[in-house]
Amino acid sequence: VHRQNLAELQREIDQLHPADIAHILESLPQEDRQSIWNLVKSDRDGEILLEVSDAVRESLLAEMDTPEILAAAEQLDADELADLAEDLPEDVLYTLMQRLTAEQRERVQSAMAWEEDQVGALMDFDMVTIREDVSLEVVLRYLRRLKEIPDHTDKLFVVNGDNLLTGVLPVRWLLVNDPARNVSEVMAADANTFHPEDDVTETAQAFERYDLVTAPVVDGEGKLIGRLTIDAMVDVIREAGEAEALSRGGLREGEDIFASVWRSVRNRWLWLAVNLVTAFIASRVIGLFEGSIEKLVALAALMPIVAGIGGNSGNQTITMIVRAFALDQISPASAKRLLRKELGVALINGVIWGGVIGIVAWLLYGNPALGLVMTLAMTLNLLLAAFMGVVIPMGLLRMDRDPAMGSSVMITALTDSGGFFIFLGLATLFLI
Amino acid sequence: VHRQNLAELQREIDQLHPADIAHILESLPQEDRQSIWNLVKSDRDGEILLEVSDAVRESLLAEMDTPEILAAAEQLDADELADLAEDLPEDVLYTLMQRLTAEQRERVQSAMAWEEDQVGALMDFDMVTIREDVSLEVVLRYLRRLKEIPDHTDKLFVVNGDNLLTGVLPVRWLLVNDPARNVSEVMAADANTFHPEDDVTETAQAFERYDLVTAPVVDGEGKLIGRLTIDAMVDVIREAGEAEALSRGGLREGEDIFASVWRSVRNRWLWLAVNLVTAFIASRVIGLFEGSIEKLVALAALMPIVAGIGGNSGNQTITMIVRAFALDQISPASAKRLLRKELGVALINGVIWGGVIGIVAWLLYGNPALGLVMTLAMTLNLLLAAFMGVVIPMGLLRMDRDPAMGSSVMITALTDSGGFFIFLGLATLFLI
Repeated sequence: VHRQNLAELQREIDQLHPADIAHILESLPQEDRQSIWNLVKSDRDGEILLEVSDAVRESLLAEMDTPEILAAAEQLDADELADLAEDLPEDVLYTLMQRLTAEQRERVQSAMAWEEDQVGALMDFDMVTIREDVSLEVVLRYLRRLKEIPDHTDKLFVVNGDNLLTGVLPVRWLLVNDPARNVSEVMAADANTFHPEDDVTETAQAFERYDLVTAPVVDGEGKLIGRLTIDAMVDVIREAGEAEALSRGGLREGEDIFASVWRSVRNRWLWLAVNLVTAFIASRVIGLFEGSIEKLVALAALMPIVAGIGGNSGNQTITMIVRAFALDQISPASAKRLLRKELGVALINGVIWGGVIGIVAWLLYGNPALGLVMTLAMTLNLLLAAFMGVVIPMGLLRMDRDPAMGSSVMITALTDSGGFFIFLGLATLFLI
Repeated sequence: VHRQNLAELQREIDQLHPADIAHILESLPQEDRQSIWNLVKSDRDGEILLEVSDAVRESLLAEMDTPEILAAAEQLDADELADLAEDLPEDVLYTLMQRLTAEQRERVQSAMAWEEDQVGALMDFDMVTIREDVSLEVVLRYLRRLKEIPDHTDKLFVVNGDNLLTGVLPVRWLLVNDPARNVSEVMAADANTFHPEDDVTETAQAFERYDLVTAPVVDGEGKLIGRLTIDAMVDVIREAGEAEALSRGGLREGEDIFASVWRSVRNRWLWLAVNLVTAFIASRVIGLFEGSIEKLVALAALMPIVAGIGGNSGNQTITMIVRAFALDQISPASAKRLLRKELGVALINGVIWGGVIGIVAWLLYGNPALGLVMTLAMTLNLLLAAFMGVVIPMGLLRMDRDPAMGSSVMITALTDSGGFFIFLGLATLFLI
């Protein structure tokens, strides 16, 4: 009976799309994942390995032996192999490369030569190229002889004898134009082209802006070397959002939810360590004023409010600015204007919310001066948060670092320590 | 000379892609934005209004009079009009609807009837439909007569006399197969189809998973009513990431970076108010222990560390779980396993980091018991954070609410108040 069920399950798995199998594998704990993985026909292993998340791919590869990995890799194109290559053990990769044709090996190596965030790492080689001096009729006949046209092909690439890209012919135009006309009359000469060294985030934005499905990749001389497709760009857009969410949440990378406890501890420790350091600094700032707190213990209860609201307000500013940077909406000329606006917002919020909490503190502790110090400290900390909320991301950008990463930790550290210092300092000056 | 420059600028604008003009408008302060907008030819107003962000669209529409808006709207398709409709003044919308043909009006109204997060609101009507009992040759001739095929068309929709969808014919297959064959022999009968009431996020995931460029939308009976394209899905993916980033950063919606100070204050006040309330509650928890703090002022300096690390650790857990939910990787069966894992991670982190900070506290204040209380409080607060980090998003989901929104505020509020309570409570029990 058990064997019958297995056969049944095997049949069902065989009918599933590789992306669906990948999803099932990601949703299963280690042991079950391994049992299902063993049921997958080995000629499908390759495509499924490409679909699963990095963390799950590692867990699957760890249990495969060399012949299994080689068999899986055999089904893949050069650009797909390059994606997989970095997760493979070095000896397996070496054997694999030996087995490729020279052209394939060159393609894998050239794709691996580019950084993960460069167009060269994401391009494929599934191009249909045509000459411009033939008629559409000839193109149609040529395509028919191909038997299969690559996925996503919405345009044909027009090249000359030197493989220089001279234009693109959208398939839509091929279909509606008179077959007697020449490619050169119908094609678009000014296509959106990309270079292998281009940044993928900007390239994905271009795909989005101009509603592209595919685009040619050319080298410095204008020679056609590869193709980008929208599905690779969708991955870039999705991953950019995820990387930001992960880093904001304090994770180094996406976690396999069924990873071992130790693996998770490793993925999270760096962030906790950074926060421990910043929290310790804030704690020492408070330590400076222990004498004041001893005399007026209400300060201890009120100080986290000043720090907390400052952190929140600073994060609002940073979120807005990081987003505007990502959309390329900020120029140096607008920086000053932005700073003025953020300081204005901080001042209003400080007076309103600082006023509210000042009155509450006054009523709670029957001390109007304490309320006034509270309002003043809130306002000053919000101004600090606004100033730093503009300056930190601009500074990170000027240092060529991604302002989305780390700016939130920095602003929180500053508004914590700053808030404690401002509030306790003012209290020491005016109340003690 | 000034007029000559203007004419020059006008010419340059006329040559730009509408998406590029939209981007320029978004990057300009109000006054400059208005001057450029006035230079845009009125027959391009419509497409540009569709490209700009919501906040900027509002600012542009606010300065246009009724005839201008009507002229802009005239250039748009029904599905595009429906996108614009909600931002239009009611009288303008009424006049506009009167001018449409009955078919167009019905399409606009049906598109507007769906919620923003339903497929019906995102579909267009640019479908090319064919019959299954004709040869590919006939299809090719039919397409040639169309003169223009809609953007993104990668497949033709095959319908019968009742407009029931019976299959799809990828253009790639049309091109490589023998023209004498019938559509029915070549088409794919089991296409990915969607319904107008489907959730757009899940639909976008399906587009991503199956690498779709377009897909038919059918009603309950299987009749073809519209089409989805990858560019609309890319917007969904982009916006999902943005909405999460905005809500995490405490903004209600995307801000026009050049919005007035008052507008920004309004966009941000709700979040600040919520945080003021949670900070106030934490402050009152500290208030309970003012007597203890008076006796041992070191507690005031150390307590923010316990609260802060708890908040960070809880946010790590929540980030991982919210992401796994979004990818649909968590089943009720795996909830218990996850909880066990997170509690394990918390225990290890508590012992390690709590131990480190406990030793530091001991050395700093020369009080080994204080160090021990610190370690114990850290560990307990991390366990609380892990428990709540699993329970809160699961609870929000069970109440059919989006776990990405609000769970971060809740966990921070709990680990703040909880951390103060645990640390000061333990200190009061063992040290005072």
